[in-house]
Amino acid sequence: MSDPRPPTPSISSVGESGLVERIAGIVGTSSAVVGIGDDAAVIDRPGDSYLLATVDALVENVHFRTNFTSAAQLGRRAIEINASDIAAMGGTPEHALVSLALPPRLEISFVDELYEGLSAAARSRDIQIVGGNLARTGGPITVDVTLLGSVPKFDLVTRRGARSGDVLAVTGTLGDAAASRLAVDAGLHPDEPELQTWMDDHAVPRARVREGQALARSHLAHAMIDLSDGLSSDLSHLCGASGVGAVIEDSRLPISRGVRWAARKLRLGTTELALSGGEDYELLVAIAEADLAMARELGVSLTPVGRAVSAADGVTLRSRDGSSREPSARGWAHF
Amino acid sequence: MSDPRPPTPSISSVGESGLVERIAGIVGTSSAVVGIGDDAAVIDRPGDSYLLATVDALVENVHFRTNFTSAAQLGRRAIEINASDIAAMGGTPEHALVSLALPPRLEISFVDELYEGLSAAARSRDIQIVGGNLARTGGPITVDVTLLGSVPKFDLVTRRGARSGDVLAVTGTLGDAAASRLAVDAGLHPDEPELQTWMDDHAVPRARVREGQALARSHLAHAMIDLSDGLSSDLSHLCGASGVGAVIEDSRLPISRGVRWAARKLRLGTTELALSGGEDYELLVAIAEADLAMARELGVSLTPVGRAVSAADGVTLRSRDGSSREPSARGWAHF
Repeated sequence: MSDPRPPTPSISSVGESGLVERIAGIVGTSSAVVGIGDDAAVIDRPGDSYLLATVDALVENVHFRTNFTSAAQLGRRAIEINASDIAAMGGTPEHALVSLALPPRLEISFVDELYEGLSAAARSRDIQIVGGNLARTGGPITVDVTLLGSVPKFDLVTRRGARSGDVLAVTGTLGDAAASRLAVDAGLHPDEPELQTWMDDHAVPRARVREGQALARSHLAHAMIDLSDGLSSDLSHLCGASGVGAVIEDSRLPISRGVRWAARKLRLGTTELALSGGEDYELLVAIAEADLAMARELGVSLTPVGRAVSAADGVTLRSRDGSSREPSARGWAHF
Repeated sequence: MSDPRPPTPSISSVGESGLVERIAGIVGTSSAVVGIGDDAAVIDRPGDSYLLATVDALVENVHFRTNFTSAAQLGRRAIEINASDIAAMGGTPEHALVSLALPPRLEISFVDELYEGLSAAARSRDIQIVGGNLARTGGPITVDVTLLGSVPKFDLVTRRGARSGDVLAVTGTLGDAAASRLAVDAGLHPDEPELQTWMDDHAVPRARVREGQALARSHLAHAMIDLSDGLSSDLSHLCGASGVGAVIEDSRLPISRGVRWAARKLRLGTTELALSGGEDYELLVAIAEADLAMARELGVSLTPVGRAVSAADGVTLRSRDGSSREPSARGWAHF
């Protein structure tokens, strides 16, 4: 404002984690059980359950483009990516607030379809849309969803509980969101119906709420995080919070037929897609090896991709040829 | 997307209330005690208190401009406008989530100062900032704050309880936010320190949390709404929700010395500023006439501005010369 200060570096130069660190320093500690830095905030309250709260934004031309994503898909996506944060704590999503920033010239039908998508996804998860806000913007469409949920206090899972020796395992397969998006971008049309279904299925992620709950209620998961930025980057967050290192084996990464097809067509590596593609919204779980069978009995199929090791050994990705490398810290770069 | 449909009208052609109505129709009813359409959503839960949840966005060049509003003021404002929604339900704000959409070239110092403002306002109200989100945008800075709070179930006040015959009264004075903003825009510099203080004081609104709580806990308020869009427009919301009409007397609108000064300098009407200026964040309260004295004893100074009447008589503004007119439905137009 009035006092002329020397310009400071741009936020893009420190990146998202640098910015989160600065913010956490300014905000200071809170009374929340888990505050800034996990998938969702965990708020204590009387009774047997914690209140969970998370917010995620989808910005036009950054997180979606209207010529590739329909308004209904966008709405479903906004609910699912937030539900994924609740899933990573073992919780149940319950109530949503929707804050929209919209250019005045936007067609009404877009808002109708967006809300049809939001409502459909919410209904399918028994989430109530209870409020929101409408703001005008001179910029891109911005969809901000806040999701509230709950988790039994005794069952809460955070990013913090991984122990050296734990198996690190993931739900589902990795890289599908990135590979299918790149395939659409490149105008690829698979000639097999199965691959077309794969592309369609990955237009909207599906949060692993049931899996997160089962792993939390059974107390099998020591730590969880949802894979929004890509395994490479989210693994670092989990290891940092837990105070462990990790070794991930490229050869064990679960890759779908769709990702293999798209990677071949696009001349990309499946490992790179799986590690850094982002937006998978699968869960990364730290679990004792002996408990993997029990997880399967609970209907949660986990693929081990590596192990937690001592923090001193750092985070390592081991290639098929036996060589090791550090993960790129960025994954999906926010800035 | 793929199916070519005829274009539908733009959202600006239906306005905010038209859009909210469409959205409420698509979302349908929820299990919330109060869902879309009040200041905050009211969520039932075990125990003696409801969970309150509200979200508000501040968009650069729509709700603020960086050359007039410092980042710290913006942060304080984002907390206060949400606290005002909680105040209107008689509640206590408790936890905040902050979702930012930021252009990558933004200076780090802006984010630091924004969070210093957010934190200062939160601390002063005993609000904990527990989480948030950072997103990149190619457009304007957008600050989305979700505020959670609580209200004893027996004390909840909504927009709905006004009865024909109630006095309609407001806290504070009206039009100050608009008048001081217009004075700044016009480059006016008051030569009296008192007026300069008035301009500075209104750069950031101050939510009437204490007043809302006192009126709710004493069960004096039949209905409340916070004046974000302007009395003219927010009165219509309260009357619509309560199923009453209203007569407002221009001569009774509380106008500060600052508004009178700015109106004279800017050649604007004080009545118009008070009715439609918006962003006052005062409370409009429906209360029995006999209870006004009790409110004063509780330390809540209310100025009666009119009365609730039968819905059949509609909403009327009565001028100083005795003539009547309908309020302009718009107040601060969102689209």
